[in-house]
Amino acid sequence: MPENGETTGARPAARPGGRNARVRSRILAATTELVARDGVAGLRYEEVAKVAGVNKNTVYRNWPDRAELVSEALLRYAEDSAPFHDSGDLRRDLVDFLMAFSERQSSPINRALVQAAVAAPGNTDLDEAVRVAYDHRLSTVRKRFDSAVAKGEIPPVDSYFLTELLSGPVYLYINRRRRPFTREVAEKIVDVVLAGIHATTP
Amino acid sequence: MPENGETTGARPAARPGGRNARVRSRILAATTELVARDGVAGLRYEEVAKVAGVNKNTVYRNWPDRAELVSEALLRYAEDSAPFHDSGDLRRDLVDFLMAFSERQSSPINRALVQAAVAAPGNTDLDEAVRVAYDHRLSTVRKRFDSAVAKGEIPPVDSYFLTELLSGPVYLYINRRRRPFTREVAEKIVDVVLAGIHATTP
Repeated sequence: MPENGETTGARPAARPGGRNARVRSRILAATTELVARDGVAGLRYEEVAKVAGVNKNTVYRNWPDRAELVSEALLRYAEDSAPFHDSGDLRRDLVDFLMAFSERQSSPINRALVQAAVAAPGNTDLDEAVRVAYDHRLSTVRKRFDSAVAKGEIPPVDSYFLTELLSGPVYLYINRRRRPFTREVAEKIVDVVLAGIHATTP
Repeated sequence: MPENGETTGARPAARPGGRNARVRSRILAATTELVARDGVAGLRYEEVAKVAGVNKNTVYRNWPDRAELVSEALLRYAEDSAPFHDSGDLRRDLVDFLMAFSERQSSPINRALVQAAVAAPGNTDLDEAVRVAYDHRLSTVRKRFDSAVAKGEIPPVDSYFLTELLSGPVYLYINRRRRPFTREVAEKIVDVVLAGIHATTP
């Protein structure tokens, strides 16, 4: 996006606060909502226009390419991740993080991310957007791990590995819906993983 | 399905080996493939008919309801799960299971299951099919855990919890595609989880 706000050929620039910026914002929110519901393959430009309250041509003009529209919608909301508090008690912080993670699973942006991840393997642009979005969303928990390692609360450990170890089971509990995910389950996950990390790290 | 193979009103019975059974089988395979690619919302009866090589009316006549068609496709393939060997070495069996689990993630039935799980929360029939299908697919690993508990290889532990603890991280490695999933990662997961289970079970 050009910093001076000039238009660049076919795509109008998003001037912060301008009418065009608000229209683009509504289109991206509508895209997120519809991808969450119908998936990437089920996304229809007419429906995006209807939900956003704009003309279909406005959507086409701004995003002639569907993968680009979906990618921008995902990245737009990717940074809106849950705050991760450092209370000094790592176990409590991790249980809180897993509870927040589980609640966010049903949000439109998370459901859109899951839909896009499922649709992405044949599409390089979408794949990159999914990866960047997940990376943003998990960066706060990784920072907490790095600080825990620095303070000696846990042994030196790959924070990516640890994040997936903790959030993976929560993800399956929520998405497979065989058993309810409760705070007690979150505590058990954190206890087993932390004990396992301590026991296996030299 | 009536045991004597009689037709029941609108829906022809699936006689094993009969022409009708073969047609139904092709339709269910096509449904799985298309749901894997486009999701439940993106599924079109015309495309199912085209891929299965049958008339569109045949699909409509057999499955007037889309959720029922998808549910039956999921359940049809749900039992086709990876064999789980009991070599006597629990660690090795679990690492093998996670490698097989990761390879299956890209199969049509698994991608269809993920798509259906994402689409399911507003649809009771689909939701039930997703849950039953996952249950079938994970029953072999749970049996291995129960036998490990019986033999004293691991402390008494909820086999559902343990399965999600092990397969959740693999799921995220594969679907978020930030880092490659390798046998070394599978070994680290199994080692941390088994050590954590031993350390936290009284």
